[in-house]
Amino acid sequence: MAKGRRSKSKTTNTEHEKYMAAREALNLIKDGMIVGLGSGTTTNIFIEELGKKITEEELSIFGVPTSFESRILAIKNGIPIVSLDQCDVIDIAVDGADEVERKSLNLIKGGGGCHTMEKIVDYYAEEFVVIVDSSKVVDMLGNKTPVPLEVLPSAYSFVLKELLRRDAAPSIRMAERKRGPVITDNGNIIIDVFMDLKEPEKMEMELNTIPGVVENGIFTKVNKVIVGHKNKVEILQKE
Amino acid sequence: MAKGRRSKSKTTNTEHEKYMAAREALNLIKDGMIVGLGSGTTTNIFIEELGKKITEEELSIFGVPTSFESRILAIKNGIPIVSLDQCDVIDIAVDGADEVERKSLNLIKGGGGCHTMEKIVDYYAEEFVVIVDSSKVVDMLGNKTPVPLEVLPSAYSFVLKELLRRDAAPSIRMAERKRGPVITDNGNIIIDVFMDLKEPEKMEMELNTIPGVVENGIFTKVNKVIVGHKNKVEILQKE
Repeated sequence: MAKGRRSKSKTTNTEHEKYMAAREALNLIKDGMIVGLGSGTTTNIFIEELGKKITEEELSIFGVPTSFESRILAIKNGIPIVSLDQCDVIDIAVDGADEVERKSLNLIKGGGGCHTMEKIVDYYAEEFVVIVDSSKVVDMLGNKTPVPLEVLPSAYSFVLKELLRRDAAPSIRMAERKRGPVITDNGNIIIDVFMDLKEPEKMEMELNTIPGVVENGIFTKVNKVIVGHKNKVEILQKE
Repeated sequence: MAKGRRSKSKTTNTEHEKYMAAREALNLIKDGMIVGLGSGTTTNIFIEELGKKITEEELSIFGVPTSFESRILAIKNGIPIVSLDQCDVIDIAVDGADEVERKSLNLIKGGGGCHTMEKIVDYYAEEFVVIVDSSKVVDMLGNKTPVPLEVLPSAYSFVLKELLRRDAAPSIRMAERKRGPVITDNGNIIIDVFMDLKEPEKMEMELNTIPGVVENGIFTKVNKVIVGHKNKVEILQKE
């Protein structure tokens, strides 16, 4: 019982921090903007709040979803959505992260298995803003969180071998309630990799040259990170 | 009529050169090998000849196809095929090319739209051998042949913009007899790009970092090129 209470309290604190970060990002959204809508629990809060803002202030804003999940949530919350080819520019993308390095703002995304579309929308946006609770900020990337690779199913065995050869520790991500692997929105699988991330920019490029790898979850082109805390938000800019 | 005859004669010569190169590659195939089977007109000849050799010499050889096309042709010609995850190693891959640079052996592939699976099989093979007729050999890559990019359909518009920003001349490859784009075996589209290829290794890596690009058709890890001529074959090795 006591344990249950502690656990609930921790969850509530984290939820509150996510809410703080999402609300702060909302201030960056202006009438007329096209907004990239990231995927994950923190971005879900942002999408819900953006829906309310659009209705209350009668704004003309379009969203570009980064996953099936964010698409459904946007529609449910009354945000008109458009495909990438219906926009000349994405003014801003707001997305979450699994782990953010404090100084460099480099980060790992892909716990949700949709980092390929996230990178497409986030990188093509004029501004890429990340919202996280404080537990996501680290001094050194990659110790807690594996880097996800989206991989063509036909190539999985040789990609695993190649990663082992590079001293990485790879594993195929399996779905929780069925026997098969997690399948991405693009019909591919995810291989999670623990590896040395001392040079994230170099690694981001190199991982994509492994034949069979579609995209990796290292993101190095972040403009701003908003960190939610109990009573404040903290803005991280590149040092 | 005279024009028709010239054209037919030229075709026959090219076919003969392809046959010369394919036959020479056959000498590299030993009993017990697992052989990557490339895609395209020259490799098709190789697959047919390999089928005959397996039957005549009662060899135990398995093929790993690089496309739906080469899979069908291998089955039709009696070559037992296996998936990548059924092999520990691919002993040798034999594939064609659209354009090969004489000195570096760097090449462009992908006229058939299956360069992603070709690169997976060719690059993971212990030896990657290319067979071409003499018209495919050039001094400088990229003047005649565009580089194909396999691109996620959702990202096409921003990939086009990004390529224009890099001073490349991109176009979506359209299917000949229907209105839509060519669709790859992986369900993606092809964007063909004319671009500066002075540094192919660098370009091969950089193109794969454009969000939405799955794989590009620059191949820089070639071990040997067999060029078919009228009365001989020429073996190109890296200088």
